[in-house]
Amino acid sequence: MSSVCLSMEGGAAASTPAALPYYVAFSQLLGLTLVAMTGAWLGLYRGGIAWESDLQFNAHPLCMVIGLVFLQGDALLVYRVFRNEAKRTTKVLHGLLHIFALVIALVGLVAVFDYHRKKGYADLYSLHSWCGILVFVLYFVQWLVGFSFFLFPGAPFSLRSRYRPQHIFFGATIFLLSVGTALLGLKEALLFNLGDKYSAFQPEGVLANVLGLLLACFGGAVLYILTRADWKRPSQAEEQALSMDFKTLTEGDSPGSQ
Amino acid sequence: MSSVCLSMEGGAAASTPAALPYYVAFSQLLGLTLVAMTGAWLGLYRGGIAWESDLQFNAHPLCMVIGLVFLQGDALLVYRVFRNEAKRTTKVLHGLLHIFALVIALVGLVAVFDYHRKKGYADLYSLHSWCGILVFVLYFVQWLVGFSFFLFPGAPFSLRSRYRPQHIFFGATIFLLSVGTALLGLKEALLFNLGDKYSAFQPEGVLANVLGLLLACFGGAVLYILTRADWKRPSQAEEQALSMDFKTLTEGDSPGSQ
Repeated sequence: MSSVCLSMEGGAAASTPAALPYYVAFSQLLGLTLVAMTGAWLGLYRGGIAWESDLQFNAHPLCMVIGLVFLQGDALLVYRVFRNEAKRTTKVLHGLLHIFALVIALVGLVAVFDYHRKKGYADLYSLHSWCGILVFVLYFVQWLVGFSFFLFPGAPFSLRSRYRPQHIFFGATIFLLSVGTALLGLKEALLFNLGDKYSAFQPEGVLANVLGLLLACFGGAVLYILTRADWKRPSQAEEQALSMDFKTLTEGDSPGSQ
Repeated sequence: MSSVCLSMEGGAAASTPAALPYYVAFSQLLGLTLVAMTGAWLGLYRGGIAWESDLQFNAHPLCMVIGLVFLQGDALLVYRVFRNEAKRTTKVLHGLLHIFALVIALVGLVAVFDYHRKKGYADLYSLHSWCGILVFVLYFVQWLVGFSFFLFPGAPFSLRSRYRPQHIFFGATIFLLSVGTALLGLKEALLFNLGDKYSAFQPEGVLANVLGLLLACFGGAVLYILTRADWKRPSQAEEQALSMDFKTLTEGDSPGSQ
């Protein structure tokens, strides 16, 4: 059934849907704005960033917003943006962006654990930290499994096509959970730092609320581009044909299309 | 293109996918557990619920979890659960569940504004409240537009089928934003009520963190059932044929299939 749809699409399309570039541009504008605004918040109201001081904590939100929100979101979009490039190139870019995101997130994790240790604060008691650890572990496992199935040669075609929808679902879910965890962390920082002043509409509180809304909007924009049915990457004719041959003949491994 | 796929599916399927009932049962178990756990949290640690006292605030989290998380989630699932019922019946159930959810959420909103007014607290300064108002307004608008397009007779078929994917996307997004807003509210309540005791792993903190994870899991479970391609409601043969006739002949209004 689905192969009928795919091959019909594959024959027709090598073009980019007219509205897609505008939506992608909008998502990038949102993403860059939220990275800049996180920097502005930390610089203007939290004293900036430095590794060897109390300002070490501030590396945590910045790394997490860059890694687990902006770069992770962009890694999900590469199959829509580079829709007419070779599948293998797009796949490698997808994997690389996720590695960058993972390494930057790891720096952000080290920053907060190191800061807690120096200050003698308790670790991992809050809902933000529980969600954060869950996101990080899921993200790492998803990357490992994705790599072994789709980039490392040798996974049988049938396994790949069975795992593919799960990889997509969990990828989107982990991204959304990352955005939710960032919101929880932002809320935590505001309540710790502002206390009663939060309810007096202080500039820092308003700026951080706007940053929170931008985080949610970026999540929504990435999800929209990702889920719109007519923006899905067309299955390229030669890849499709090749996969079908492999599937029919051997059920062995294919060059990684579909 | 899509009508080819749909009519081929429509011909084949009147059955329920084998795994779907287990996933739906699991989602309901999660949903009921999180409603019960919200009640347990408020009863054990927050003094219970009463309208005419300081306990009025506690009506807010309970109403929101029942209305904007559990019932809203279930309303999204009716097209998967009642996949072989008449489309019109399922549609009415979908609309009714959303009305129940909206009314219960309204009670929850009145509870918190009334409590703030009596206590002299400021309104709408926090990220939780900004997200909450945004969710409530979007939910109300989505209901109104959904009603006018899909239940109220007279919307042309072409408009319906253009709006349908947007309705589905925004429905899922508003649901996820509701779950995120609930997490922010839970975090706010914990930091206000527990303060420094939160980091001492008090039972209330641990219970509420588990409740937070359950909220996220319920969101994930509903999203999984909703997005799994082979679990989508089959377009019933007679509805499909009828819509195609109407579309071809008149581009006028159809009995509401697709």
